[in-house]
Amino acid sequence: MTSTKPFLSDNAAPVHPKVWEAMHAADSADNPYDGDSLSSELDERFSALFSRDCAALWVATGTAANCLALATMVQPHGGVVCHEEAHIEVDEGGAPGFYLHGAKLMLCGGEGGKLTPDGIAGLIDPIRDDVHQIQPHAIAITQASEYGRSYTPDELAALEAFAKERGLGLHMDGARFANAAAFLGANAAAAAAGPVDSLAFGFIKNGGMSAEAVVLFDPAQADLVKYRRKRAGHLQCKGRYLAAQILAMLEGDLWLENARHANAAAQDIASGCGDRLMHPVEANELFVRLSEGERDALRVQGFAFYDWGEDAARFVTAWDTRDEDAIALGKAIASL
Amino acid sequence: MTSTKPFLSDNAAPVHPKVWEAMHAADSADNPYDGDSLSSELDERFSALFSRDCAALWVATGTAANCLALATMVQPHGGVVCHEEAHIEVDEGGAPGFYLHGAKLMLCGGEGGKLTPDGIAGLIDPIRDDVHQIQPHAIAITQASEYGRSYTPDELAALEAFAKERGLGLHMDGARFANAAAFLGANAAAAAAGPVDSLAFGFIKNGGMSAEAVVLFDPAQADLVKYRRKRAGHLQCKGRYLAAQILAMLEGDLWLENARHANAAAQDIASGCGDRLMHPVEANELFVRLSEGERDALRVQGFAFYDWGEDAARFVTAWDTRDEDAIALGKAIASL
Amino acid sequence: MTSTKPFLSDNAAPVHPKVWEAMHAADSADNPYDGDSLSSELDERFSALFSRDCAALWVATGTAANCLALATMVQPHGGVVCHEEAHIEVDEGGAPGFYLHGAKLMLCGGEGGKLTPDGIAGLIDPIRDDVHQIQPHAIAITQASEYGRSYTPDELAALEAFAKERGLGLHMDGARFANAAAFLGANAAAAAAGPVDSLAFGFIKNGGMSAEAVVLFDPAQADLVKYRRKRAGHLQCKGRYLAAQILAMLEGDLWLENARHANAAAQDIASGCGDRLMHPVEANELFVRLSEGERDALRVQGFAFYDWGEDAARFVTAWDTRDEDAIALGKAIASL
Amino acid sequence: MTSTKPFLSDNAAPVHPKVWEAMHAADSADNPYDGDSLSSELDERFSALFSRDCAALWVATGTAANCLALATMVQPHGGVVCHEEAHIEVDEGGAPGFYLHGAKLMLCGGEGGKLTPDGIAGLIDPIRDDVHQIQPHAIAITQASEYGRSYTPDELAALEAFAKERGLGLHMDGARFANAAAFLGANAAAAAAGPVDSLAFGFIKNGGMSAEAVVLFDPAQADLVKYRRKRAGHLQCKGRYLAAQILAMLEGDLWLENARHANAAAQDIASGCGDRLMHPVEANELFVRLSEGERDALRVQGFAFYDWGEDAARFVTAWDTRDEDAIALGKAIASL
Repeated sequence: MTSTKPFLSDNAAPVHPKVWEAMHAADSADNPYDGDSLSSELDERFSALFSRDCAALWVATGTAANCLALATMVQPHGGVVCHEEAHIEVDEGGAPGFYLHGAKLMLCGGEGGKLTPDGIAGLIDPIRDDVHQIQPHAIAITQASEYGRSYTPDELAALEAFAKERGLGLHMDGARFANAAAFLGANAAAAAAGPVDSLAFGFIKNGGMSAEAVVLFDPAQADLVKYRRKRAGHLQCKGRYLAAQILAMLEGDLWLENARHANAAAQDIASGCGDRLMHPVEANELFVRLSEGERDALRVQGFAFYDWGEDAARFVTAWDTRDEDAIALGKAIASL
Repeated sequence: MTSTKPFLSDNAAPVHPKVWEAMHAADSADNPYDGDSLSSELDERFSALFSRDCAALWVATGTAANCLALATMVQPHGGVVCHEEAHIEVDEGGAPGFYLHGAKLMLCGGEGGKLTPDGIAGLIDPIRDDVHQIQPHAIAITQASEYGRSYTPDELAALEAFAKERGLGLHMDGARFANAAAFLGANAAAAAAGPVDSLAFGFIKNGGMSAEAVVLFDPAQADLVKYRRKRAGHLQCKGRYLAAQILAMLEGDLWLENARHANAAAQDIASGCGDRLMHPVEANELFVRLSEGERDALRVQGFAFYDWGEDAARFVTAWDTRDEDAIALGKAIASL
Repeated sequence: MTSTKPFLSDNAAPVHPKVWEAMHAADSADNPYDGDSLSSELDERFSALFSRDCAALWVATGTAANCLALATMVQPHGGVVCHEEAHIEVDEGGAPGFYLHGAKLMLCGGEGGKLTPDGIAGLIDPIRDDVHQIQPHAIAITQASEYGRSYTPDELAALEAFAKERGLGLHMDGARFANAAAFLGANAAAAAAGPVDSLAFGFIKNGGMSAEAVVLFDPAQADLVKYRRKRAGHLQCKGRYLAAQILAMLEGDLWLENARHANAAAQDIASGCGDRLMHPVEANELFVRLSEGERDALRVQGFAFYDWGEDAARFVTAWDTRDEDAIALGKAIASL
Repeated sequence: MTSTKPFLSDNAAPVHPKVWEAMHAADSADNPYDGDSLSSELDERFSALFSRDCAALWVATGTAANCLALATMVQPHGGVVCHEEAHIEVDEGGAPGFYLHGAKLMLCGGEGGKLTPDGIAGLIDPIRDDVHQIQPHAIAITQASEYGRSYTPDELAALEAFAKERGLGLHMDGARFANAAAFLGANAAAAAAGPVDSLAFGFIKNGGMSAEAVVLFDPAQADLVKYRRKRAGHLQCKGRYLAAQILAMLEGDLWLENARHANAAAQDIASGCGDRLMHPVEANELFVRLSEGERDALRVQGFAFYDWGEDAARFVTAWDTRDEDAIALGKAIASL
């Protein structure tokens, strides 16, 4: 890829220098698997970050993180309510069906990729309470959503109340959790996670290499996740290199700093989009109405991005997006 | 861990400098997942190494590598013949049951952790050919074995002939494949793999960080493994860092060089063990009869290792074992 | 249940006298499982019925029959295209997810519960051919459909051509296959099954007690189904009583005779429904627009049936529906 | 099969006349599935029989009954301790692996097919308490055992105490539970079941046609089993015919009467066997040392039975075994 102004995705960005540094610092031999001194710090560090007790485990992908967390809430004969465009439904190659042993994803609509109690009720209330129909066991939401929207603390509280009332677990796919937290501002981590039961906290798109965290706000569930992580072939023997990445990202709030940078770049672009924007920009993704000709024109100027259907484009910023590229893109779109 | 003379395992050793170097060289953004230029080289590089056509995919653990390969051969209602002390049976937390959707491991004895056609026939011939009994679909062997023994090319040929005759797949768990290859000598890779159908080629214990290779000698199976790898949450978005590790290990036969070093260190130790050795040393592991008192005496001298039952110890050398430590250990045992 | 004029469902009707008779005739001891002389006749009898080579196995429920047949076509990482109101999606408690080890049901719309090549293409053409998205492996249709509609031979031929072109299996859920066959008329079995790859041929709703047939038009698949049937706990040791039921239903075309009776009763009702009918009546189910008050009025007259949403009712006739009840119901609706 | 003196197995015996009678009595339409009046009686009838609160559900095979009960105790990543010759290990085609989503059977020796706390401790105590090794979640025993041995109430109490201490569930495979109960005598049902958590109560080998009972002594588990039964395709729509079979067997203790008859016939045979007996006869199975020539001699006299290895035979009596046949067999063996 030789594009000089890349907005394809944040998922292939380079690794942040401080992450590299921490990985190198972990290079001397230590106990294998998660018995090393770095992995042992995770519970405490995340508990401090969220100001509530939690257990945290590294894992190499968001797909595994989501599925392992869901396995604490969903029996094989149950279902998971998620948005019809949720990553777990659309882009994880059936991983939930595998990890949950055939449980079902129950698809719900919702503006901007976000679920609401009313929307979920509309889906699950008609389900007959009998053995012929799959019953929901959990709700999975994405923060920021697949359309770059962030759930507010109030929205999260309402979802949690609904989940409790219905006896459902509440999981958050946080592949871009940092971007949502950065958008929501003060007391960022706690605000963005709200009262969810579990969180797949993403670091890879935000400057990491190969480590996400499964955060369990009921630490008693950690045991199950540890057995299932091993069983899924996700217990790496040199786990200290994954722990090191995560700790480096937490250190000095690098995770927030990186996300703020990406979000700011997204706003720079947004400022040129006017009512071309299909969704408010609340993280680091933009969905912009652009004709084929307009997209061609941008590409000629060196901007790289994906088409989004016939008449739109998706732009994603990252921790390493150059300010000048984002500003240039915003201007280029404004000039179309 | 502060032991100055570590022989606990090779699974937590540092990462080789050339592997670090290759990972850094991969740091500029490239296509995500396995669409990058490094991942794209794997098929060709492994085909050259084995002098036969194969497909090769990276994955983060040997457990996942074994299970994904076995999934090309074993239906959920079938079984896998393996040694009763095989890693997939004893140390993978039930991963084969998960990845193979409930297929069974069928346990076979065998000297030194090695299977033979006769041994396998003794296990499977009594199985009635009816639906009440699980039928074997594949054989899994470990090279080098869990007791540090290496299968010779003749032994591998005999197993393959047996497998073909019975219509079974033949998979090789090569967590320490390099050590077996280094032991077997000339034309190492091809000799050590023999005519197996698939190989989990280990790099992590031998100087890598987080990348093993699934090698499929029927490249037509690659598609299935790719879908299953994604479904298992093992398709990392920055896969180029895994490909880089593997390519660095293959470059200039670093994999063999590292294994030769570890094997030589094992021989240094072995030379002091006499008939204390429980198994011939054909790779980088030693199983040595030592009383509790003798083990204590060694530990007092700074040697770190695991007990092996009541009356023995296991020593493992690695790519970074210091010659002087190995020689010292050999002498220390001889002096007991 | 003491209703004198029952139209709730055909799934709880009594067992036909000839079925009872055949079961009693099977009472002397014979080989267990499917080794008895009756079970051994099934392949031949169904091959004759369909005028093409097939294997046939008994199983106790349509749910198991559907899932076992689908398991011959669908890998755990694949999907099954079915109607969004298909029984396998809505009423089988997640059995496909269980039997297919997490494979996905891919939901398609279609008038009257029927799928069309165009409809399916609209669903699957947008699926990216990459490992992030689940790929379809098979299509499942229901004959007669969940709305009592029958696929014509031409429609079936078009679906098969489409399936072949896309490399998909084609399975037919025939819980009410007999009613479709009776509706389609001459050469009924072959016409109603068309060129599908497998059929769950229902007998229970049509006068049987506890036996459906899995019919595999590629007999080479029988082995897999036999292993999976046992593995699912569906290989009954006194299987001869199930074979006896099926053979009794085939004998003298009792299955068609019973279905014709039920269909005729459905037409008797339909004749009083006029444009209240939501779907053409092509089998033994009627979906009729009726207000709550109208439904109450019918129930006061002794008719038993289920509501269908707010403004409609579902009536099902069976092999034992009394003509006078059906005629009376038709008149009662006409008089509303 | 035309043998006049059949001792092959009890699994293909005819259906008892009282069972037929009860099935016919159930022929009028009732609610489908398990909503009928007969199915609704089961909980109460079994609670009375065992003098403790339980839930009971019908299912068509012992394989399904065992697996559904085990699913209340065993997570997919766990294991079930059972005898190495247990039916669930040797003769259920991998059903536990399917129903338990890949959980492992952990094989334990034990005289006469019976497990003991010491034997189990010897198996599970060496298991490391870490995620690399599968942990046991339950114990499964067979009453009467695969060698026709019955657990005494004391033995059961010891197993339950052990299970509780280790936090394991305790399941009983009761394919021939009636024969054990008849052997144990007074207060038969409660004595034979002891304090187990669940029981697969067999009726089919003892005069039934197609109904076993899953008995759950923690009735709160019934819900899970109901969902899983449906999901496994085992919820028959005309379930009343299964409930009728079971109720007929319980009525007037027909189940015990039938078993007593079979047991008595077994004793008639045993009385001629002397020290040819490989196991004490505590139910309705005999394992008798007989050379090939001796077996031939018996077969010439019209006795039908299975070889048991090279130098023995297995004889099974049933509810319909003719006294004169059993006596004749005992004499014939004595005369060899």
